[in-house]
Amino acid sequence: MPSSSPAGTFPAHTPAASQIFTTVLTHGPLTRQEAARRAGLSPAAVTRAVRPLIEAGFLVEDAGAEVRPALGRPANPVRVDGGRALFVGLKATGDEIIGVLTDLCCRIRVARRVPLSGRSPREVLPVAADLVRELLTEAEGFGVRVLGLGIAVAGDVDRAAGAVRRSPFLDWHDVPLAGLAEEATGLPVTVDNDVRALTVAEQWFGDGVGLSDFAVVTVGAGIGCGLVVHGRVVSGAHGVAGEIGHVPVVPDGPPCHCGDRGCLEAVASDAAITARVREVTGVAVADATEALALAREGDARARAVYARAGEAIGRGIAAVANLLGPERVIISGEGLAAYDLFAGQIRDAFTAAAFGSAARCEVRTRPLPFEEWARGAAATAIQTFVGR
Amino acid sequence: MPSSSPAGTFPAHTPAASQIFTTVLTHGPLTRQEAARRAGLSPAAVTRAVRPLIEAGFLVEDAGAEVRPALGRPANPVRVDGGRALFVGLKATGDEIIGVLTDLCCRIRVARRVPLSGRSPREVLPVAADLVRELLTEAEGFGVRVLGLGIAVAGDVDRAAGAVRRSPFLDWHDVPLAGLAEEATGLPVTVDNDVRALTVAEQWFGDGVGLSDFAVVTVGAGIGCGLVVHGRVVSGAHGVAGEIGHVPVVPDGPPCHCGDRGCLEAVASDAAITARVREVTGVAVADATEALALAREGDARARAVYARAGEAIGRGIAAVANLLGPERVIISGEGLAAYDLFAGQIRDAFTAAAFGSAARCEVRTRPLPFEEWARGAAATAIQTFVGR
Repeated sequence: MPSSSPAGTFPAHTPAASQIFTTVLTHGPLTRQEAARRAGLSPAAVTRAVRPLIEAGFLVEDAGAEVRPALGRPANPVRVDGGRALFVGLKATGDEIIGVLTDLCCRIRVARRVPLSGRSPREVLPVAADLVRELLTEAEGFGVRVLGLGIAVAGDVDRAAGAVRRSPFLDWHDVPLAGLAEEATGLPVTVDNDVRALTVAEQWFGDGVGLSDFAVVTVGAGIGCGLVVHGRVVSGAHGVAGEIGHVPVVPDGPPCHCGDRGCLEAVASDAAITARVREVTGVAVADATEALALAREGDARARAVYARAGEAIGRGIAAVANLLGPERVIISGEGLAAYDLFAGQIRDAFTAAAFGSAARCEVRTRPLPFEEWARGAAATAIQTFVGR
Repeated sequence: MPSSSPAGTFPAHTPAASQIFTTVLTHGPLTRQEAARRAGLSPAAVTRAVRPLIEAGFLVEDAGAEVRPALGRPANPVRVDGGRALFVGLKATGDEIIGVLTDLCCRIRVARRVPLSGRSPREVLPVAADLVRELLTEAEGFGVRVLGLGIAVAGDVDRAAGAVRRSPFLDWHDVPLAGLAEEATGLPVTVDNDVRALTVAEQWFGDGVGLSDFAVVTVGAGIGCGLVVHGRVVSGAHGVAGEIGHVPVVPDGPPCHCGDRGCLEAVASDAAITARVREVTGVAVADATEALALAREGDARARAVYARAGEAIGRGIAAVANLLGPERVIISGEGLAAYDLFAGQIRDAFTAAAFGSAARCEVRTRPLPFEEWARGAAATAIQTFVGR
């Protein structure tokens, strides 16, 4: 009885239906034949899966865009009706929460930021709940329901358990965030590491669509990395993966907050760059913005600090490429503000250290504002909704 | 008509049958119920898949080992009859070819080594073909047929195409090895990178059984790494993966044969260690054996070279653990002969550089003679035979 599905439930209860919907969502519009080919299913299975999804309004048939194959019957492509449902995504930094309302195709409809006065769960959760309520009010104007909430947090996050194991930025330990947020908002909640959430958004809706092996490297307050291998985001056996920031790049290099020395993050994070600029120039720059301004004014010593950071990032990316051979590496994060100061060094160091055909990996940049991190959180909520 | 299958064909033509057979091969003996649970299939599908495999003699029912569950009917475990088929595995080094005859459970029955007088395909192939013929003659004594040949070669190997793209050790470029070997031997041939082949043997028959994420790191003439992520061996989008030997560990370190500087291989391979021992001691050691002897005699400068190599290996392994979060890293290779001289440094450097719970990754050693590399090649032939 698909047409009688309640508004908030997804009428795809089989793995095949979930797979077909995901295929159309990430690659659509597609004809049923094309969707069958991409999903590795029979055309009959696709027809069976598509019918209730059309009846419930999640898929629509593009009658106007009829494809006339050389042989066989004309075929109408199907696509996801993005406006059929809404999702909320939140990203918590140390200073603020960024929230977005997206549609089912993960397009941002509304974005909001609210400052945080403290970082403890007790201080963050009420602010987050208020922000969600504000976005739910906004959603009423669209006339469709919000069907899920995603929350992205830096650190060691156990998505399956819905818990933040450890977040150094927030100083959280073992916070059962999904349960707490479900209680506060009444929405189904998905919690994930922020870089993995961003990687999910790239995999489903961005520069990673259609790639089975790629990496997202984020530079800024930390240096993070999301990895997709064999078509799936890597989570690690013990919850840690993608820690490119703690790949050792300079033996006996500067001390890192993790306790080791010479980690990539200890050379190329905003804080590391700022501290080093202070050290080599003697100018008391307060933060990354001031350090960047000094370098932009032409201070050669400050510029050398960025060059060194770029070299280290390039070597870190080469380590990823040499180990995993991805098709593409997408560099992103707020640290890209300084990209003109180290882009050349990233590229040169990567090219020098990439082994053989690993150098064929495409390295591209994609400046993403913080709203995109929140969008990543919404993408994880969409994944949960469609049963992936 | 399963019982009339010719001796050389495998009566499992469906993905489910291939999956069940693989599950019993790698985890067996198993009851049908347990096999169904592990493979994620219905008991009915398992019963259907198992019958022709029993009729053809590839699976046997262990009537003596009946399992009496608390509820339900007693269940006879099934296991693979390892003696039902034989396989040949070859590993080519620069100096010799190592060949093994294994059974279907990848147990070595016969092992042989033959020296090489040259490294060109024209010189290597006839020697390899002679060795295979010798092993086929040995196989006659077992009264079962040899059903596949696996060949493992260092370098960039395209298993799907059956071609060696580039092997620096052999100085081969674009050699269609599988086709040439099939012509020479009449056997179905699987060609793979040697470290990946070793990883397959560990995944199916060794220390990786049951793990979805693990790594094999080999030290010796080169430093290699086989990676299993999400239960599958990583091959890389462009044929390069697991190149831990070319992870940059010492910026501006010693030059590497790949053209870069400070790669792990430029610090910790046998040749790098030998050259460095010569340099710091002034003793004209000819090879790794002599360098090792000097260190064992107590020469502090020589011992320091091994210590530095161990530190670099530990950092390289930490890079793998921080990026992928494997459950286990297995260190192997002929370089383990010097293990007492750098085991402590590997462990200390790994512990210092592993981030958070990535340190929970178990690092173990497994000394493997060259015959084990050839066994890895046989394991790839077994994979091909069972359709994986």
